[in-house]
Amino acid sequence: FLSKKTKHHKPCKTLVLYFHDIIYNGKNTANATSAIVTAPPGYNLTILAGNFHLGNIAVLDDPITLDNNLHSKPVGQAQGLHMYDTKNTFTAWLGFSFVLNTTEYKGSINFIGADPTLVEERDISVVGGTGEFFMHRGIATIMTDTFEGEVYFRLRVDIKFYECW
Amino acid sequence: FLSKKTKHHKPCKTLVLYFHDIIYNGKNTANATSAIVTAPPGYNLTILAGNFHLGNIAVLDDPITLDNNLHSKPVGQAQGLHMYDTKNTFTAWLGFSFVLNTTEYKGSINFIGADPTLVEERDISVVGGTGEFFMHRGIATIMTDTFEGEVYFRLRVDIKFYECW
Amino acid sequence: FLSKKTKHHKPCKTLVLYFHDIIYNGKNTANATSAIVTAPPGYNLTILAGNFHLGNIAVLDDPITLDNNLHSKPVGQAQGLHMYDTKNTFTAWLGFSFVLNTTEYKGSINFIGADPTLVEERDISVVGGTGEFFMHRGIATIMTDTFEGEVYFRLRVDIKFYECW
Repeated sequence: FLSKKTKHHKPCKTLVLYFHDIIYNGKNTANATSAIVTAPPGYNLTILAGNFHLGNIAVLDDPITLDNNLHSKPVGQAQGLHMYDTKNTFTAWLGFSFVLNTTEYKGSINFIGADPTLVEERDISVVGGTGEFFMHRGIATIMTDTFEGEVYFRLRVDIKFYECW
Repeated sequence: FLSKKTKHHKPCKTLVLYFHDIIYNGKNTANATSAIVTAPPGYNLTILAGNFHLGNIAVLDDPITLDNNLHSKPVGQAQGLHMYDTKNTFTAWLGFSFVLNTTEYKGSINFIGADPTLVEERDISVVGGTGEFFMHRGIATIMTDTFEGEVYFRLRVDIKFYECW
Repeated sequence: FLSKKTKHHKPCKTLVLYFHDIIYNGKNTANATSAIVTAPPGYNLTILAGNFHLGNIAVLDDPITLDNNLHSKPVGQAQGLHMYDTKNTFTAWLGFSFVLNTTEYKGSINFIGADPTLVEERDISVVGGTGEFFMHRGIATIMTDTFEGEVYFRLRVDIKFYECW
């Protein structure tokens, strides 16, 4: 989804952040940061649905860090939903916010968009922001930095604001 | 929802597309393009809830076509959620993306808004886009082109961008 | 989330509205305006999940009034979703629309954002609108005006549009 037009625009602000998603699997109550709360008819909630994997919705409260280390001090939380929406491959639909709360970053950034998970770089929309990011719009490029089984996912997000206020 | 103000604005780009929603009813695994994944307490997932029909969420992966023929070659997929949110009539809330992937259209368009399903033309917001639709905003007018029972719905979407980049 | 930058901007339009959320608890079918439709594994749908309260999604069709009286004549409906997304405190993620239908207000306003429920004033994004609010963007400040147990919540919303058309 790289646009010809992006070449003509320079971001007015950029941010690179990581967030860490640990899916609740029925055993990891203490560590889990997200829970699958829906499944298509006939599937349960503690593992991604199988060959008809359309319909899992996960609710997130994932820590955000400045680098790719799960154990770094979080600068905020990624909160919202992650919906698995394809029968034959892995794609997702995302609606979530970054809630940042440090001396440097104080405010929230709101995202929505389709996430074709198996593509290396996927673009979603930054549709608004509050606080430090008041009224901002832009594009976020999401990359799967790593994953372990179907439990831990680390996502890198390159946020490029093209409309700052 | 026609605004007085729309008269003063001309779209910078328009698109007419159709998408086709076949709800999973427990039997049509091969053809279904969406699944109802939530229901209010006491209802099941393979049919819209009855007289308390508030709370069905459907997850979509619907083919998009250039004309009103389900069997035309898809130009992309409509992915996201469709939520039924009224007790006494049919209204929905939509959060979804058009992911387009042809030589002519390459990019995604992100929508949210209320959909008073029984109104002939309903307007929702185009809140952003990527690729060919980088940073675009506008209005999408949704029309129910046809439906068969509570399984097949064909929607026509007239997309009018008022902010192009 | 008050931004330094908001000081430099004056809204082009403001609105103060209230909406009233009565959660379905299994007994209040006649009065309920929202239903909890998901819960984390192991919880039921008629009460907010307990010590692992991550994952309740509620679907809303709440009346909107001009003052803080549940029994005032509604000017519209708040429709969409309210997601509880934290393990250790109360935070929510909101995706919803105000559908207004009076002689004065005719159109819809679309919101998304994180709602740290225990904070007195929380800002979310107004990402678009239709009709009277065609293409508008802004910030909505949400305040919990009152609540009764875990059933009735009254929210005050101060909508400030910074981009009018």
